[in-house]
Amino acid sequence: MRWKCIAAYDGTGFYGWQSQAGGNTIQDFIEGRLRVIFKQHVRIHGSGRTDSGVHAHGQVFHFDAQWEYPAADLLRALRSGLPESIQVSAVRQVADSFHARHSATGKLYQYRLYEGFAPPRETRYCWSLGNRRLDIESMREAARHLIGEHDFTAFSADRGDDTPVNPLKNLRLLEVRKKGLRVSITAEAGGFLYKMVRSLAGALVDVGIGKLTPDEIPGILKSAKRTSLISTAPSRGLTLGKVYYRPRK
Amino acid sequence: MRWKCIAAYDGTGFYGWQSQAGGNTIQDFIEGRLRVIFKQHVRIHGSGRTDSGVHAHGQVFHFDAQWEYPAADLLRALRSGLPESIQVSAVRQVADSFHARHSATGKLYQYRLYEGFAPPRETRYCWSLGNRRLDIESMREAARHLIGEHDFTAFSADRGDDTPVNPLKNLRLLEVRKKGLRVSITAEAGGFLYKMVRSLAGALVDVGIGKLTPDEIPGILKSAKRTSLISTAPSRGLTLGKVYYRPRK
Repeated sequence: MRWKCIAAYDGTGFYGWQSQAGGNTIQDFIEGRLRVIFKQHVRIHGSGRTDSGVHAHGQVFHFDAQWEYPAADLLRALRSGLPESIQVSAVRQVADSFHARHSATGKLYQYRLYEGFAPPRETRYCWSLGNRRLDIESMREAARHLIGEHDFTAFSADRGDDTPVNPLKNLRLLEVRKKGLRVSITAEAGGFLYKMVRSLAGALVDVGIGKLTPDEIPGILKSAKRTSLISTAPSRGLTLGKVYYRPRK
Repeated sequence: MRWKCIAAYDGTGFYGWQSQAGGNTIQDFIEGRLRVIFKQHVRIHGSGRTDSGVHAHGQVFHFDAQWEYPAADLLRALRSGLPESIQVSAVRQVADSFHARHSATGKLYQYRLYEGFAPPRETRYCWSLGNRRLDIESMREAARHLIGEHDFTAFSADRGDDTPVNPLKNLRLLEVRKKGLRVSITAEAGGFLYKMVRSLAGALVDVGIGKLTPDEIPGILKSAKRTSLISTAPSRGLTLGKVYYRPRK
């Protein structure tokens, strides 16, 4: 039996999603809880990894396990025993052909900025810009150059392993919204390269503060080379909002 | 020269506002920072203490110190070097007659509830009620019995020291608002007894879940005795929102 789960977490203080020898990752904690429930190791498969410090509202993962009781009981069992900063918000049985990563058709991320000094309640979830001010219109102009299918290598980082990657990604949405001192960048694509959203956010902020001009963006994109022109925005501002799948038939 | 400051903090993990031998209080951290700035111990005076785990949006404190530069520079100096969960958001010079506690004419607190399992971003700032559901209309009915000037001893706790207290308080506002799964209780009074807001919140939640009826509230209030009928809501849901002073002339 295959189970699809939705998880929300505050990534502060965790070493990211993916299990590692030292533990303290979201995956390690969830698998630790599943081991208690199922009395054996149950491997979970996430829709993708999130980096250390990155948050999630709707991360998706799946696992295979026999469970003869209602799904609501499994949800209850998964809800207790996890750190408060990790929450499994939904569980349902899916077809064995479902795969959290392979079946995903897209992802939505949000990057949060604060034009000023964010209050303590928000510092963990946004990049506080202090006294710097953003030119939102320039950021939007830059964003328009980035939307669409491109080789996004210039806006990504090398993962440092040998996983082959297709650098062509279709950025369907890159939107800059402002409400008072809070600015958000919403990005949606079929898939993202490593550190791509944080690189896009870093570039948009650099445009916003005048370190880059919107006109420089197309050239950087075309170069398909990561250079020091692009900076990576801090992980704390990033939240994986939603993972999309084809609707159930 | 007397300085009035506004501070916001995430009370999670601190031992409350008031300085104590073991440190780790908001006051200790702010005084520690002032010692660096002024090269001597500067005592701060808060509008009141907040308990361990209680948050503040607009706590007010004052201190006396010589500072010959613009107030904005003092604010900048106070903003750096403090833990991220404590933020001094405003500083201005005031008359020597101003006193953060004695001059206060009122305070506004907010208590946050979540009807369900709060997402990780919010767990530190609300009381998650899990599967319990609230009857908001009953809570509002109970609140109407509490508004006005009363001896609130039944809704307070003994501080355990010998400070004399006047148990008569004028509760000007006690409002229950609901937006989706989020419920907030707003309380405003000239002053509050020790643990009064959390006791009011505890009683309103007990009414909301049917453990108490609104009609029982007047009797409990009149008894002017703290009994086990009243429970204290968890500190994490409470935020000191604002401290009121007479407008400057």
